[in-house]
Amino acid sequence: MKHQDYMKIALEEARQALSEGEVPVGAVIIKDGVILARAHNRKEAQHDPTAHAELLAIQQACRQQKDWRLDGCTLYVTLEPCAMCASAMTQARLSTLVYGTLDEERGAVESRGRLLADNLYNHVMEVYGGFCEEEAKNLLEVFFKSIRDRCNQVSLAD
Amino acid sequence: MKHQDYMKIALEEARQALSEGEVPVGAVIIKDGVILARAHNRKEAQHDPTAHAELLAIQQACRQQKDWRLDGCTLYVTLEPCAMCASAMTQARLSTLVYGTLDEERGAVESRGRLLADNLYNHVMEVYGGFCEEEAKNLLEVFFKSIRDRCNQVSLAD
Repeated sequence: MKHQDYMKIALEEARQALSEGEVPVGAVIIKDGVILARAHNRKEAQHDPTAHAELLAIQQACRQQKDWRLDGCTLYVTLEPCAMCASAMTQARLSTLVYGTLDEERGAVESRGRLLADNLYNHVMEVYGGFCEEEAKNLLEVFFKSIRDRCNQVSLAD
Repeated sequence: MKHQDYMKIALEEARQALSEGEVPVGAVIIKDGVILARAHNRKEAQHDPTAHAELLAIQQACRQQKDWRLDGCTLYVTLEPCAMCASAMTQARLSTLVYGTLDEERGAVESRGRLLADNLYNHVMEVYGGFCEEEAKNLLEVFFKSIRDRCNQVSLAD
């Protein structure tokens, strides 16, 4: 399977998040062609600001491996990671990050900071952006449009 | 109670981590004088690179409040937070951070970056460092000395 194929699975997770009323972001972790973890954003459902797709996937993969080291693993995520998730990836010693669309507001890999380039934890990760970018972006636009529509309905009803 | 008194509770948590063979870091979250959460680093026990004292305390406080927003809360932690934890704090909208000793290797508040000053998430947090600094630092030194001694014993036995 290619990067795009794994990103399609991350997109399935993002669609699941959308159906649950969460910001649609999905993540998958792979090692030697085997899926160790797949997860989607569950911040609202879990009342947990740390329940981003990437953190949940890292936690799941570590439980599966019974090890906090994820050397040799690749994490696919539909949205550029925030500083919390990018930092967690380096601490998990992930080998590769592949992400979809940019997060101009919170992205800490390319948009609002370059945390992985800073080599903060003496760990070097390969990073590739822009995979399945349009699909990932469209899902986010659908979500934020639905939020705006709901706000407009509420203000019209006032 | 004063900042120092809450930091003493965070230090109790750090001592608990030390007794479990973990890097000794402890954290406490307070709102209106009430302790919402207390936790210590459990990275090795949980096989989880995200199981830092601060993240566990944030998750615990959010479960207790049934809300991912921790407005009006203060987080006390014995060691300067890393980028993962500092970013999680802003996303949880914590009001105040009080920390103990500096982490020259990974600290993302003052030592190796100034993530909270960058205002990455349009959230302003009050930050105070250096509380109970010596006690927090001593615990870390005891831990790292024990690791070095163990390594030396192993190499002597070779």
